[in-house]
Amino acid sequence: MEAKFEFIPSGSVTSPEGFCAGATYAGIKKEKGLDLGILASEVPCVAAGLFTTNRIKAAPVVLCQQRLRGGRATAVVVNSGCANACTSEQGLADAVEMARLAAEVIGIAPEDVLVASTGVIGQTLPMERLRNGMRQIALSRDGGHELARTIMTTDTVPKETAVKSDEGGFIIGGVAKGAGMIHPDLATFLCFLTTDASTDMDFLKSALRQAADVSFNLVSIDGDTSTNDTVLLMANGLAGGEPISPGSRRGEVFQQALNQLCIHLAKCTARDGEGATKLVEVTVGGAPNIAAAKLAARTIVGSPLVKSAIHGNDPNWGRIVAAVGRSGVEVVEAKIDLYLGNLCLLKAGCPQPFDWEEAVRILSGSEVAIVLQLNLGSATATAWGCDLSEEYVTINSHYTT
Amino acid sequence: MEAKFEFIPSGSVTSPEGFCAGATYAGIKKEKGLDLGILASEVPCVAAGLFTTNRIKAAPVVLCQQRLRGGRATAVVVNSGCANACTSEQGLADAVEMARLAAEVIGIAPEDVLVASTGVIGQTLPMERLRNGMRQIALSRDGGHELARTIMTTDTVPKETAVKSDEGGFIIGGVAKGAGMIHPDLATFLCFLTTDASTDMDFLKSALRQAADVSFNLVSIDGDTSTNDTVLLMANGLAGGEPISPGSRRGEVFQQALNQLCIHLAKCTARDGEGATKLVEVTVGGAPNIAAAKLAARTIVGSPLVKSAIHGNDPNWGRIVAAVGRSGVEVVEAKIDLYLGNLCLLKAGCPQPFDWEEAVRILSGSEVAIVLQLNLGSATATAWGCDLSEEYVTINSHYTT
Repeated sequence: MEAKFEFIPSGSVTSPEGFCAGATYAGIKKEKGLDLGILASEVPCVAAGLFTTNRIKAAPVVLCQQRLRGGRATAVVVNSGCANACTSEQGLADAVEMARLAAEVIGIAPEDVLVASTGVIGQTLPMERLRNGMRQIALSRDGGHELARTIMTTDTVPKETAVKSDEGGFIIGGVAKGAGMIHPDLATFLCFLTTDASTDMDFLKSALRQAADVSFNLVSIDGDTSTNDTVLLMANGLAGGEPISPGSRRGEVFQQALNQLCIHLAKCTARDGEGATKLVEVTVGGAPNIAAAKLAARTIVGSPLVKSAIHGNDPNWGRIVAAVGRSGVEVVEAKIDLYLGNLCLLKAGCPQPFDWEEAVRILSGSEVAIVLQLNLGSATATAWGCDLSEEYVTINSHYTT
Repeated sequence: MEAKFEFIPSGSVTSPEGFCAGATYAGIKKEKGLDLGILASEVPCVAAGLFTTNRIKAAPVVLCQQRLRGGRATAVVVNSGCANACTSEQGLADAVEMARLAAEVIGIAPEDVLVASTGVIGQTLPMERLRNGMRQIALSRDGGHELARTIMTTDTVPKETAVKSDEGGFIIGGVAKGAGMIHPDLATFLCFLTTDASTDMDFLKSALRQAADVSFNLVSIDGDTSTNDTVLLMANGLAGGEPISPGSRRGEVFQQALNQLCIHLAKCTARDGEGATKLVEVTVGGAPNIAAAKLAARTIVGSPLVKSAIHGNDPNWGRIVAAVGRSGVEVVEAKIDLYLGNLCLLKAGCPQPFDWEEAVRILSGSEVAIVLQLNLGSATATAWGCDLSEEYVTINSHYTT
């Protein structure tokens, strides 16, 4: 049964009961703007995290993984402008100090603070600025919006929302950043999720993994995987009630709400990919299994040639078929159907005559939907990405200069 | 022992004894220029081929694979402007007819003709133009240069060369095209290799596979794999002498010469990648095995963020480390050394102070060399690619429009 929940207008990561946040400009970013923030719960939380699969892991990722072993945390401190990655032992020491400084501001134990960083790889944190900055941070119940701006790098808009379930009696809030170096698994970005629901560590971990699998892990901007990918979910239980248990109706409601919130943030991330001018949604159906459907959809949405063609509103659909062909997924050319919006381009492997102007019109929209049917099974998956524009290259040619 | 051979000035695919070629403008390309050509040997050849790993294979690829089962061929007919891919049964019928038309021009059996196509996917060949065009083709001993121009699409320069070995008593010629949709395995392009050496099918197949593994399979332009990738090697034996056998000194000389010729064409292809302004050469050393070295080198050279940074002469070296980290190869951060040209950027995982201006100067060259030492073993591999420029996107946004 479909669960009922609603997106809260102007919802943020501090929408759930008992969460507060604050931020400041510490001078870590080159350009002036919020670059250091804290997200904290009034009470300790059950917490779960997902991290980059990159074998080069930034210091804050290593620290979070250590601290989350117990499945508990109370706060996260985050900076933009410097990834604190490839920074050797100094990097880890800096991440530990960063947590300690934040703990002092909040008034909790340093071990209860998680850390996240985003920005340039290979540079150490400017600790003196960070120390000074941290003292400026004031936490407030509506600080979520500040936090959303703090974690932006090449993002052009903040990405945040919250959902409320009356049936489940909880709110889930979320904030994300990520515009480049984004590719499953795990779709890069920082993403912090909060909820006032009451639950245990096992349920929380499983719920986060499930939600990520249908959202962040199906986003691709450029095929590069960051060293800093971090998704954190913290539940403080302040909404009260019985703890949510797996298999229960409330567990189902929570999972559905979390999935939708994560899909929303995933789509926001894809739409705001570096240089992107549109959101691309690729659905692959008729796959022999779900893994194949996901791989095919991700390969198409990640193809630079497909992305370039979409950018230029060029109905060069052969590239879509070529992409699925190289994806590694089982493909029978004579069975493939391909649709651009409602326009059928290929039916059972035979090119169909189509209205070129209509195809260009569909491609010119702010959201482009591609559906490819493999007709080999019954599994379906949707992946999200964006077009590839000259602007992507311009942004990334001069990131540190 | 190193074999001696020399590159022939203005060498081409018709440099070896007994090969001729010719081309015409048949009107398959939109813009005027050679788009239909024939390469033929005076006598039947032993022949071997390598083809795309894409599961969607263009009709000419399917036909070549059938016809090469016997390991013999006498000629190749090739067109640009249309890939004859995703064209269903009509495509195969057209490829068969294309071979027959060429066979008539040459005066041989249709089954002895191989076929290759490059261009837009999903459109059928304009057969009437092709029929008319074919009749215009006149073969000549120095037609190799024409053939090189015939197969160009977004290539900006023809790619051809020949090597001569006095010791081995043979010449090998080669021509290639390929500027986009290029990624191992197999690095896309069309590549035709000819030799007057005398040899058998098994040796030829093995030699071609070995040469491709150290050249074409280590080139990446954009991560997309074409439906039409074709590499053909034809040996007509007209140089005379004993057939070259595996394990012999002449077999070794032939292999080395073929490797060098293929590496030359691979580098030409990388340097002329769509929108490229420079050649990027990435060497990964100290890998636990050769497969890991290749995978790491290819991942770095294929990273859009690394490529963008190189385009902008931005020494954003963290992206190189991040790329190797996501390559799937075993990596120990604290062991990595990284060099840009002769400049050491990272030593045993520790960032090194370096001369920024010097790094920018190195990146500004027409050839950029990156060396990453994993220090985990003794295997080394080099991969080639190019920078990612705004021009790549511009080219690919309007390919069919």
